[in-house]
Order: sequence, then structure tokens, then C-alpha cells
Amino acid sequence: MSEQYRQLSPSEFFYRNREVAGFSNPTRAVYQAVRELVENALDATEMHGILPDIKLELREEGDGSLTLAIEDNGIGIPSSEVPNVFGRVFYGSKYVLRQSRGVFGLGVKMVVLYAQMTTGRPVKVRTATARSKFVYEYEVMIDVEKNIPVIKSLKISRNDSKWHGTRVELSMRGNWVQAKKRVEEYVRRTALIAPYARISLEAPDLVLRFERSVEKLPPAPKVGRPHPKGVDIEMLRMMVERSKRSTPLVEFLVENFDGVGPVTARKFCEWAGLNPEMKLRDLKVSDLELLALKMQEFSGWRRPKASTLSPLGEELLAEGVRAVLNPEFVTAVSRAPSSYGGHPFVVEVALAYGGAIPPAERPLVLRFANRIPLLYDEGVDVSVKVVTEKIDWRTYKVEFPAPLAVVTHVCSTKVPFKGVGKEAVADVPEIESEIEAGVRECARRLRLHLSRLERLLEAKRWRVTVGKYVEDVSRALSYITNYDEEQLRSRLVELIRSRSSRGGR
Amino acid sequence: MSEQYRQLSPSEFFYRNREVAGFSNPTRAVYQAVRELVENALDATEMHGILPDIKLELREEGDGSLTLAIEDNGIGIPSSEVPNVFGRVFYGSKYVLRQSRGVFGLGVKMVVLYAQMTTGRPVKVRTATARSKFVYEYEVMIDVEKNIPVIKSLKISRNDSKWHGTRVELSMRGNWVQAKKRVEEYVRRTALIAPYARISLEAPDLVLRFERSVEKLPPAPKVGRPHPKGVDIEMLRMMVERSKRSTPLVEFLVENFDGVGPVTARKFCEWAGLNPEMKLRDLKVSDLELLALKMQEFSGWRRPKASTLSPLGEELLAEGVRAVLNPEFVTAVSRAPSSYGGHPFVVEVALAYGGAIPPAERPLVLRFANRIPLLYDEGVDVSVKVVTEKIDWRTYKVEFPAPLAVVTHVCSTKVPFKGVGKEAVADVPEIESEIEAGVRECARRLRLHLSRLERLLEAKRWRVTVGKYVEDVSRALSYITNYDEEQLRSRLVELIRSRSSRGGR
Repeated sequence: MSEQYRQLSPSEFFYRNREVAGFSNPTRAVYQAVRELVENALDATEMHGILPDIKLELREEGDGSLTLAIEDNGIGIPSSEVPNVFGRVFYGSKYVLRQSRGVFGLGVKMVVLYAQMTTGRPVKVRTATARSKFVYEYEVMIDVEKNIPVIKSLKISRNDSKWHGTRVELSMRGNWVQAKKRVEEYVRRTALIAPYARISLEAPDLVLRFERSVEKLPPAPKVGRPHPKGVDIEMLRMMVERSKRSTPLVEFLVENFDGVGPVTARKFCEWAGLNPEMKLRDLKVSDLELLALKMQEFSGWRRPKASTLSPLGEELLAEGVRAVLNPEFVTAVSRAPSSYGGHPFVVEVALAYGGAIPPAERPLVLRFANRIPLLYDEGVDVSVKVVTEKIDWRTYKVEFPAPLAVVTHVCSTKVPFKGVGKEAVADVPEIESEIEAGVRECARRLRLHLSRLERLLEAKRWRVTVGKYVEDVSRALSYITNYDEEQLRSRLVELIRSRSSRGGR
Repeated sequence: MSEQYRQLSPSEFFYRNREVAGFSNPTRAVYQAVRELVENALDATEMHGILPDIKLELREEGDGSLTLAIEDNGIGIPSSEVPNVFGRVFYGSKYVLRQSRGVFGLGVKMVVLYAQMTTGRPVKVRTATARSKFVYEYEVMIDVEKNIPVIKSLKISRNDSKWHGTRVELSMRGNWVQAKKRVEEYVRRTALIAPYARISLEAPDLVLRFERSVEKLPPAPKVGRPHPKGVDIEMLRMMVERSKRSTPLVEFLVENFDGVGPVTARKFCEWAGLNPEMKLRDLKVSDLELLALKMQEFSGWRRPKASTLSPLGEELLAEGVRAVLNPEFVTAVSRAPSSYGGHPFVVEVALAYGGAIPPAERPLVLRFANRIPLLYDEGVDVSVKVVTEKIDWRTYKVEFPAPLAVVTHVCSTKVPFKGVGKEAVADVPEIESEIEAGVRECARRLRLHLSRLERLLEAKRWRVTVGKYVEDVSRALSYITNYDEEQLRSRLVELIRSRSSRGGR
């Protein structure tokens, strides 16, 4: 009749529930490991103004294990942080308000845990920060029961080549044959959304090499403060505890929240029936509750700042689509920043048509969120809903089967993913309507293009049809008028050409 | 060019990523909270041989918050454990090898966190263990940044009524109007799978009361040891660390694993090329790796024991279906224990037909896992796949639209859920084929029933048709034979009745 109680460490929790983080089987584990490592490599470069140069290697070893190695030219990891970054769950640099590929700060630890449980071997990390005099090489494992890193070895050498970046190597069991197709798709789509990156992959039966197609990075996101609309009581409580007890409420609001000046803060306090000069020490729990509620309801806040976001921009997005899909026509739209529940977001959409895109019964939808390709759970994603249910493509002169691809990219400090798997975006109304507007804008441009194509085709058909009679007509005219037949013929041909180039009849 | 690193507490992680645990919006949060509290209440009773008596109350308060209260007659929580059980993430009693509704040991902490962030108020817990002289009433909050409980108040009173159980009450924001339908469905299905439970719910516009339809509990699951097939290197390492260094390998295997006797252990060592007398202290990392691999591959292990499981049994399942669905026909199958990757599992299936079940174009599938109703993500669940794709219902004389419901119940120490949401079971081949076998067995019984119905119907039709001629035939016979017409008629009627009761012509 009694139970045994115990505390689980975060490592042990995720070790036991690895499916939750995408490590559900030997195929998925390979895909997930590649993905986590690539995302970290990109975050370590592009977020800091460095054009990414990423090398991924995958080898099958004689004993049946896989060796996975990735190297980037990023900012590197400070030596003292390496053990924790790789060997302690819930330790990391992603816990700030800023768009990044990593969301849960869990990824690389899950890879290390999975490697450790399937081969028992440590992760090897080689890293140097910019201008570091030394290169550090660690071998790290995780003490699962205590959630602390165990350093198996450390080698320090002089950084004579002034290298900076991180190289991670580990051994795991996994099914490469089955994972290959997904990994390939993942890398291909990553190249699409990061046309400024050089990415290479060498693996059994698979060599991929994507050169940069542009030399320009989108502006990096800045770390921001939370928007007052996105607040909750717990957040307020933690903020209050970190502030001086004598701070007046108005100052507290100005200092802690995004886009709140003294004027707005006073206006809010007045509206909410709170004394702006009230000291934090006098706030009761019921005041916190009222404050949170009113902050969520107040309509006078400025929109959340989009400086925490880093959309690609229309030019880069179109370039990425062009380089990877090789279509005949491409157009891209980067919408103005918007927000839901205090979280800023930007939607970008590109349409590609023709060329190397194979015709299909429905549009090919390529989904991205914070520059992460989303490959699974398409059926429940908001973009697919918009593209297949809300848009009547005949309005835009698209007749299926058609060679049409739709690319959607949602950037936010808080992408509303449907699960930890980060594979589908929920249908938040604000995001849905932005996606729809973006798709329609692109689709209108596509219609113009298709109309032009149609006219060109029609003109060509007219030229051919009318051209058939040139011979007879010029002969007959010459007979009637006595003009030179050859001259008449060339004048007629000229006439047909000039008419048709102005767009048909 | 540098990053800020920090450690997140488990509380803060889940506070930030509450969607992961199902708290994604005010509607889902209410459903999820009810569910977590009901599951804990059931685990605290049925798992310990107590017939559950569960009272759930939900009130809308004037300030817009919801008060949620649940009381059970379970084993109670030892007073000293209360703060941690409600106020510390990753602390609990679910971290043993045994079937239980709770899986992640996260549920109630997520409810407390959500309540705290939406209303700022503590959870109230009233509890007494069996034969406790006192009743303890705590008010607890979570210090999110430190992941420790904060006791707001504690009241101790004499337990004169010899009560035992737990009552939890909390305030949260949520959308009851929208959540109502789902909560109702959840409670209804819970009553189906737990016909031995008394469950009542009082909420705005919704009063439900399910009496026990049986007084018998299925046998409670026992805590078990892991099966050798489900081992990994990390698990072995932790087990080795907990053992004496001088233990011989063979003894280590016998002591730590399910169903491994000295004979099997020696046979395995021989097959794997390992010395059975080797001391644990001499095991190298490469030996651990080999050991794990060989243990997974060895085919000579006994099947995992099913004593860690607690299937309902055919009788209870049929009773639950009868009480809740009120069908004309019901049949249930509880399959023999099976296993996948070292995890034991049992599949139970029930079919219900006719009666109060409305006819529909496809079978109504009611899914359960470890006695938890699964309401969402039906499209990706293995049971739905079997029922709609693998079974041709015409084989079993079912013509749609038909009043058919299929109930599936998967019990396992490790149900392969597709996410933390615990809403869909993955299509593990072993489980899929057990479900299929169960459905087919039930469907064959349904076919017998439908054939019998068909024959009865046919016999009735025959009786009516033939009966029409009784009058004329008896009159004609009487005319020819001079027998009494009345006697002939009654003999004929008797003949028709006796023939048709033997099943038609």
C-alpha cells in the first residue's frame, strides 16, 4: 500500500523518454542527430555574421556502428563551457528571447545520450573561439543519474592556424540505409533556406555539395525583451524578484518590457486602475494577477519589435529556391512583421513554377520555421491547410497537374510547434492569415506570368496559322496589283512578326 | 561574438515549453488538467486494490478563473512527500517498471505550474494514508527557477473518520465552454475502461455520474525487472555501478533481469563468447558494448513476464462496453501476453454492435492505452490503421452504414506513444498484428451473431410467407380428406412454428 518516491535527473528523464525528442527508432535517430548537429552549426555561424561553412561526414564502421562528424566555422564554444554544453541537460545558450533554430536547448545532449546508450562511447569535441590561442579537444560523457558531464580526456594545442569553430564527432547505432533519403531531403531543404551557406555531406552512397549561391547573410536577430501582451503571473513574479523592491511600477514596466515607454506605461496604469508610483514591495499576489490580466488585455501597446527575428528577405529566399529547385519562374514575398499573443512573427512565401519541378496533382509544399525544414506531419500543418484548402488555384490560372512548388517560412521567437518534434506549425489564426496573404500575393504574380506565357503561346499559334497563307496571299496580291511578289511576301512576314510581338491579334 | 550560457531548471523548461505537455491553449489546458488529475486518482486506487471512488468538481468563479477539485479514496501520499510530489518536476513514484496510467511523472506538476502562471495561486492538497492518525492540508507552489516546492501553509488535524485518499484543489484560467465536450468524452470513456470505478463530475452545464457496474478489480500490476532484450549500454552501466564489483557476470544477469535463471544465463554467456565467471570489475567499455548487443540479439530468453501488466480481462471489458455504449451485442477478447523489444504487452479488443450505437459509414474506434482513453490524433494510430485498412468488414457480414464500435486496449510497461501528448500508439509490427488478431477474433463472433440474426429474420419472413397459405391449404385439405379444418389449421401452424424455430427451411 505504499509507493517508492524518487527524483529523476533531467538526463535520466530524457534518456527514458527519448521518443519525445525524436529518437524513437534507429532510422529516425540518425535523421534527428544530423538535424540537431546541423542546426547548432548554423546557429553558431549565421547568427553571428559568419557565412556558414559546414562539413558533415558519416561513416559505417566495421562493428556496425555509425560515426557522425560535423565541423563548422562558427564562433566556437568557450573551453570552460564545453563539458556542460554537451554533458548537462537544460544547460545552454538558447534560453534567450531571439529567433534561433534550436528551441528546446536539448538537441545535442540528446545526441550525446543516444550515442552513449548505443555504443557507450563519449562525444569528441574540438573547438576554438575567435582569436583563441588554443584549440581544445574534449571527450565528454554524461553521468545520466546526476545530470553532470564526465570529462574523459582533454587535449590543448596551439591554434597556429587561427582556426575558429567547432567539430563534433560521435559513434552511434542507427540505420543509415533507411535514414539516407530523409537526411538527403533535409540537407537539400536546408540549402534552399540557407543559400548563403556552403554545406557538404559525405556518406555511404551519398555525396552532396551545396555551394553558396549568395554571399550575403540576412541581418542577425537581436536578443529582445518580452512583449507585455505575452506576460503571465509567473513571469511577472520572477521579474519582480529580480528587480529592486523600491522600484515604482511604471519604471518596472519600462525597464522590463518590449516597446514600453513612460508615456505608454502611465497610460496603461491609469487604464488598469493601478497606481504607477506604487513600489514593487507593495504588490500583493492579487495585484500581480490583476496586472498580468490587464497587460494581456490592454490594446495600447506597440506591436512587438521584429528585431529579435531574422527573416531571409525576398531576394535570398528567391535565390535559394532558384538554386535548389531550378524552376522556370520564381517569386518571393516577405510580409511585414505581425504578432500573436505577444510573440512577433514574420511570414515569407515563395512560389516556384515549371523548369525542373515535376508536374503533380497538387502543389509541392516546402515548409520552414526559423529556417528549419519541416519534413514530417505535413497533414496537420497550417501551411498545407492554406495551400490545399483555402486557395482555389484556378483563380490564378493554375491547372493541375502543374509543376508548382509553394515555400513557406515562419520566423518567430515562439513558433507554435505542434510537438517537441518541431515538425508542424499550429493553425494560430494570425499566422494562418499572414500565410494566406503571402501565398495570394505570390499567386497573383504567378498568374501574370502564366497570362504572359499564354499570350506568347497564342501569338505563336497565330503566327503559325496566319503564316500558312503568306505564300498564297502574296502571290494573289502580286497578280492583282503587279507589285513584286518577293517584296510583298517579306512585308507580310514583317507585319505578322510585329503584330505578334505586341501580343497577338 | 559570444553567448550567454545558463542552466535551466526542469520546472522552468516545462514552464517555457508547456505545449509539449499538452497545455497549448486555454481549452486544451482544462482537458489536460482534468485528465492528469483523474489518472493520478485512478493510479492511487485501482493499482492498490481499492475500488475507485472519484469526485470531480469544476466551478467558474466570478473573477473568470476556474476552480478544479478532485477527491479520491486512494492510498494517500505520505505527508513528507507532498511538497515534492506537487512542487518538484521529475519527482515521483512512477519511475518503476510497471504499467500505470501516468507515464512521464510530469502531469500534476504541469497542472500546478499552469495554475500558478495563470492565477498565481497555490495548489491545495488534503491527504491521509491508510490508518494515518492525521489529515494533512498543504498549500504548495513551485519555485520555478530552483525547481523546489514552496510550502505556503500546512494544517494538521486528527483523522477521526479514518479517511484515506487525496483531495487536490486549484485555480486556473481556462475555457470551460470549449473544453466541456472533450472533458465529457474523456470521463465517459474512462468509465468504459474502468467499470469498477464510481466517477462523478459536477461542472457548469454538465453533471455526470457513473456507478460501478462491477465490484471486481483486475489484478494489480507488480513492479518488475527489465527484460534482457530491452537493454542498452547506459542501462547496463548504471546496473553494474549499483552492483558489487566482485559479482560474476552470470550472477549479475540472474539478479538484474526478468526471467533469467542460471541455466539461461550460462547458455547466453557461452553463445555470446563471454566468460560467465568474469567479475564485473573486469568488464571494459567494449565488453559492455558487446554484452548489450548480444543480449538484444539472443533468441533464448524467456518472453517478458506479464505480471507487470494489468489488462482488464474479457469480462470487465465487455461489462464496461455494455454499461457505457448500451449495444445489442458485445464480445471481448483479451489476447495472451506478447512483447516487442523487451517490453511486455497485452492487447484487448471488444466489438459492440447495434442497440444505442448509431449506424455510421465506418466503425467507431475507441482507443485505450494502459486504461487511458486516447481522444486525439486518431489518424496516425495503429488501431485505426488496422480497423479501417486491414479488415474487410464484408467478410464478417458487416455492411456499412452499420452500428459498429471497436474498442482496443494496449497495456504495456512501455506503450510506444507517438508523442508526450499520449494520444496515439505507433505502429510497432508486434502490436499491430496482435490488434489485428484480436479484432478478427471478435469479428468472427460478430459474424456468427449476425448470421444468427439473419437466419432468425429469414425464418420470420418464411413463417409470414408460408403462414399466408395456412387458411387456404387447411380448407383444401379438409375438403379433400374430410379431416376437421380447425384441427388441420392448428397442426399446420404448429408445423411452421417448429420448423422455423429450428432455423428456417
